[in-house]
Amino acid sequence: MDIDLNSDLGESFGNYHMGNDAEVMTCISSANIACGFHAGDPIVMKNSVINALEKGVAIGAHPGLPDLMGFGRRTMQISPEELKAYVIYQVGALAAFVKSEGGQLQHVKLHGALYNMAADHEALSSAFCEAVRSVDEGLTILALSGSKTTQIAQKMGLKTASEVFADRAYADSGQLLSRQLPGAMIHNQDEVLKRVVEMVKNKRVQTVTGSWLNLSVDSVCLHGDHPEAVALSKAIQKTLLNEGCSLKPFGRNEG
Amino acid sequence: MDIDLNSDLGESFGNYHMGNDAEVMTCISSANIACGFHAGDPIVMKNSVINALEKGVAIGAHPGLPDLMGFGRRTMQISPEELKAYVIYQVGALAAFVKSEGGQLQHVKLHGALYNMAADHEALSSAFCEAVRSVDEGLTILALSGSKTTQIAQKMGLKTASEVFADRAYADSGQLLSRQLPGAMIHNQDEVLKRVVEMVKNKRVQTVTGSWLNLSVDSVCLHGDHPEAVALSKAIQKTLLNEGCSLKPFGRNEG
Amino acid sequence: MDIDLNSDLGESFGNYHMGNDAEVMTCISSANIACGFHAGDPIVMKNSVINALEKGVAIGAHPGLPDLMGFGRRTMQISPEELKAYVIYQVGALAAFVKSEGGQLQHVKLHGALYNMAADHEALSSAFCEAVRSVDEGLTILALSGSKTTQIAQKMGLKTASEVFADRAYADSGQLLSRQLPGAMIHNQDEVLKRVVEMVKNKRVQTVTGSWLNLSVDSVCLHGDHPEAVALSKAIQKTLLNEGCSLKPFGRNEG
Amino acid sequence: MDIDLNSDLGESFGNYHMGNDAEVMTCISSANIACGFHAGDPIVMKNSVINALEKGVAIGAHPGLPDLMGFGRRTMQISPEELKAYVIYQVGALAAFVKSEGGQLQHVKLHGALYNMAADHEALSSAFCEAVRSVDEGLTILALSGSKTTQIAQKMGLKTASEVFADRAYADSGQLLSRQLPGAMIHNQDEVLKRVVEMVKNKRVQTVTGSWLNLSVDSVCLHGDHPEAVALSKAIQKTLLNEGCSLKPFGRNEG
Repeated sequence: MDIDLNSDLGESFGNYHMGNDAEVMTCISSANIACGFHAGDPIVMKNSVINALEKGVAIGAHPGLPDLMGFGRRTMQISPEELKAYVIYQVGALAAFVKSEGGQLQHVKLHGALYNMAADHEALSSAFCEAVRSVDEGLTILALSGSKTTQIAQKMGLKTASEVFADRAYADSGQLLSRQLPGAMIHNQDEVLKRVVEMVKNKRVQTVTGSWLNLSVDSVCLHGDHPEAVALSKAIQKTLLNEGCSLKPFGRNEG
Repeated sequence: MDIDLNSDLGESFGNYHMGNDAEVMTCISSANIACGFHAGDPIVMKNSVINALEKGVAIGAHPGLPDLMGFGRRTMQISPEELKAYVIYQVGALAAFVKSEGGQLQHVKLHGALYNMAADHEALSSAFCEAVRSVDEGLTILALSGSKTTQIAQKMGLKTASEVFADRAYADSGQLLSRQLPGAMIHNQDEVLKRVVEMVKNKRVQTVTGSWLNLSVDSVCLHGDHPEAVALSKAIQKTLLNEGCSLKPFGRNEG
Repeated sequence: MDIDLNSDLGESFGNYHMGNDAEVMTCISSANIACGFHAGDPIVMKNSVINALEKGVAIGAHPGLPDLMGFGRRTMQISPEELKAYVIYQVGALAAFVKSEGGQLQHVKLHGALYNMAADHEALSSAFCEAVRSVDEGLTILALSGSKTTQIAQKMGLKTASEVFADRAYADSGQLLSRQLPGAMIHNQDEVLKRVVEMVKNKRVQTVTGSWLNLSVDSVCLHGDHPEAVALSKAIQKTLLNEGCSLKPFGRNEG
Repeated sequence: MDIDLNSDLGESFGNYHMGNDAEVMTCISSANIACGFHAGDPIVMKNSVINALEKGVAIGAHPGLPDLMGFGRRTMQISPEELKAYVIYQVGALAAFVKSEGGQLQHVKLHGALYNMAADHEALSSAFCEAVRSVDEGLTILALSGSKTTQIAQKMGLKTASEVFADRAYADSGQLLSRQLPGAMIHNQDEVLKRVVEMVKNKRVQTVTGSWLNLSVDSVCLHGDHPEAVALSKAIQKTLLNEGCSLKPFGRNEG
């Protein structure tokens, strides 16, 4: 059974260092690299691409809102036209580094508030998918399993990869419980590992009400922003390998 | 006799409007479009690309320094490595809009202080040319006639286009006289038109000492930032057409 | 009868010119000067302060969201703590230019999306007023007549000035009709002039339902972003003078 | 014998953490707090001011170039007029946080490339000192011992504090040896401690040629950007206390 593990990398900026990219890179098969709006700068992007290519990790663009001070995590009321232009700009910039280093871009995943805004919003998801398709129709859309974003991408004929979160609680609707709510984050490591195996092998998760929710599962999102997150990522990787899974990037549209 | 006329466009930003792009677009065969560092934003870039394609004007990327407040005109002590990454980023971003709208990027020209810094500096010119080549080796380098930038680009096997300035005084060395110096700008329109004909037809210009300097001349740079500049651009275009020249973009490396 | 006329000035940035400040300055008694987040830069701020002092126009700070690309007009989900810090920063920066040129800051008015966000939101208005009070308790809060912002400022013991818009439709609630809605903008100049006289002399306005709404009216907001707006501003000024009103800044808390 | 120890603090930005402010704060008597151009943001500035006031550390503004990506360390060709406006803006912003928290600003020190640019450049130093004086003439100018900046500040009647660097090699001219040159940094801790005692007690340092250079010494600059730097700062503090020195901020102009 093939599964992809993805994580957000390349989030340093200028003299500011963020994340544990070198360690996280050993746990994952696909990297989402920041593109200079919410994080990342041209030097960081270049080095992140070089590192990913050296480690055999597939590369995705990770466009965000133009809000470095808020790390792209604050909702901004932008129009679908603005979203589309922001995505084309950022995907183009990252794709140039990948081409420059002899690689090929695999996917695009929205970052932070933009990811959440699009997940429930048809016009924003459409703008996102049109942007990606217009730049390179072989690119895969990596988005929340069951979200409007994956639905629209599929309707538009784009290849999609559905991602799940092992340490987040799910509502019956398939949405992630807001981080503001109690119980939104699952802190018990055994519980997280049990959930990730259930998700990857049986394509389902138990929601906050206790009922089972079926999921598409192509990739599991791992975090690497602090030492505990790296440790959990390693544990998830090890558990999935022990369960007989193969780590493998989901790839581009070969068609 | 074919000649290209180029101008800097797409320099608006957000709610800020700059330049007379619609009028200038009717005078030129190649447009240098700002890429979001010193001017331009994703929406402006997209609209500029659409306008150029509609008008049949060839498109170039116009990367600049990360200094919006100074419009990229203030020298910054950046390293060749930084210049290279800044160029890859900006060229990639603009190329994505061009691809997205069904066109093809023709050239790259550095903006403002970056243009001047590279013109006399071998390591910066090399970094610039390597950046462009690594993204797309068919792209033409548009640079000051006789500069280090064109010399290095040619050595690296890149197609080049040499540009001249009809309203600027030249030193015997082939460098433009600094704008700070008296006589650097030629304000008499008849004089400017006489010079541009001499440049385009006889490939030479009279320097500040009165001696004749031979020039490579593939393109003439026109300005469009104020109404007088637009009027002069129109006069230059008309004069060259009357002299039997054909306006034609210099093109990509077809090889 | 004293009335203040206010307008937003100093919205240029770097090489980007915006507005008709010189002309608008002759119509108003109070200027709201941008502080570098949504518009303005240190050079522009300095020049705007000098111009206002020369013309005898009272000076206010006009802090906005950190979104130059969107001109501070896009709602951003910031916390009260962030709003408070952004206001202290921007008011302090502008106050330094005013002090540097020998003047005194009169007031603070929020810009764009921030103005609207605070008008209906108690925690944001409180954060705003606390910020202003902590920097200089003599400063006046200039805000929408009847808004949460003026209510909270008054509760906190700050001096307030209530502003009205002559060319905007009012709902029965006292809120401005959203610009998205038909009829939100009143384009007929005679109608606008009649409304402004009614507002200033009788302290009331007819809402979209036809009923009369009582208003506090210390200042009328004028626009100067395009030639027609300047012409309307001049007409409003002239009409009020003809009606026997005196143009006079509302002042600081003298207490 | 009183001596001041100063360090650069408040250099975090948004989600980016930089420096070991809490530890460094225990070693120093004066803090130079970044003001949002090269580092720092309104939330970081507010928290840094609160922390300094709690620890009894005197507060200075640390204005830099508008170059977050280069951390203000890249020379930019700005005019004296631009420098003046950038300093007024940043000092005003920080002063507002200090006032807001009930403190008083002690000094201003330029950051990074701006510090070096002004040290040897009369017009830039004059612009800097005029900016500071126009905002608050009680503020002390903290600058390199023997630099143009301290000379001009003194001529203008401003209070100055001369700072020295214990771990940097000095040329006979009194300038710091460029970091690019071999031997510019003194890595041996015993050597550094010997130098700092000589500087503070005997007001002199041995230059790279072996000759003795007399110095004004009001403050020693300590670094806190990595664990070793913090350890060295603590060793310097301890050594000076053992030598009978008292740590004491240099203060404002009481006149």
